[in-house]
Amino acid sequence: MEFRKARQQDLPALVALLADDALGAQREDASLPLNAAYSGAFSAIDSDPNNELTVAEEGGEIVGMMQLTFIPYLTHKGSWRCLIEGVRIHSGYRGQGLGNTFFQWAIQRAWDRHCTLVQLTSDKQRPGAIRFYENLGFRATHEGLKLQLG
Amino acid sequence: MEFRKARQQDLPALVALLADDALGAQREDASLPLNAAYSGAFSAIDSDPNNELTVAEEGGEIVGMMQLTFIPYLTHKGSWRCLIEGVRIHSGYRGQGLGNTFFQWAIQRAWDRHCTLVQLTSDKQRPGAIRFYENLGFRATHEGLKLQLG
Repeated sequence: MEFRKARQQDLPALVALLADDALGAQREDASLPLNAAYSGAFSAIDSDPNNELTVAEEGGEIVGMMQLTFIPYLTHKGSWRCLIEGVRIHSGYRGQGLGNTFFQWAIQRAWDRHCTLVQLTSDKQRPGAIRFYENLGFRATHEGLKLQLG
Repeated sequence: MEFRKARQQDLPALVALLADDALGAQREDASLPLNAAYSGAFSAIDSDPNNELTVAEEGGEIVGMMQLTFIPYLTHKGSWRCLIEGVRIHSGYRGQGLGNTFFQWAIQRAWDRHCTLVQLTSDKQRPGAIRFYENLGFRATHEGLKLQLG
């Protein structure tokens, strides 16, 4: 398995991956040609040195994705954190330890970027995901609060 | 009350604000001259157009602070989110609605930056803060998971 930054031409596969999920199916639009909002978002991510949209590839196929955001803070004596969002593993590749390998890679990447903390929020409707993160060493010490605008 | 971006010369007051808190007292160093790590972090924040360290000022005194991070995502059909961290209100100014006014300002700022979601995590040891966010319309739909590195 190989991990690399996502490319513009990966977008249809990435949006299909986001939509292939109980929650994602309600909010994404994987129809082709792709909604232009996705390529606008991709450009914003790709041009920001503190954002890395990463894919896991096996045999030329995209089997997973996640976005890492590196954020400098004053707190904790001035430190960088790595925020992880938009994690998906292809439905045909689950239960094979791929998510674990992908997260080990991400945690190493956060180290390389001098982060002292990795954080993410996980929907309380996904108890399996929460257990997965706890098994990796994450602790659910915080409430993840969201406010929808508009 | 006035809201503006933090300046380098605000740093001693900001670190004092971070340290004046049950959890912050354990992890910050407000001694002078200030630990150089703080000014390094400040420069990284200040030079990033997607990070805004903001102060609330009243009568020339810094009475509050928070950091906004604007993040582009593919999810939700390609959308921007505003992540809020490092929120502090000066202990002498609590219970006067200042936090509410500051958050109304921050939510408007997220609108101005075309965000569709504002998110934050709050330590489960701060039940008063969680109620405050819920009263603002935030919903605790997610677990906030953290992994300390090193």
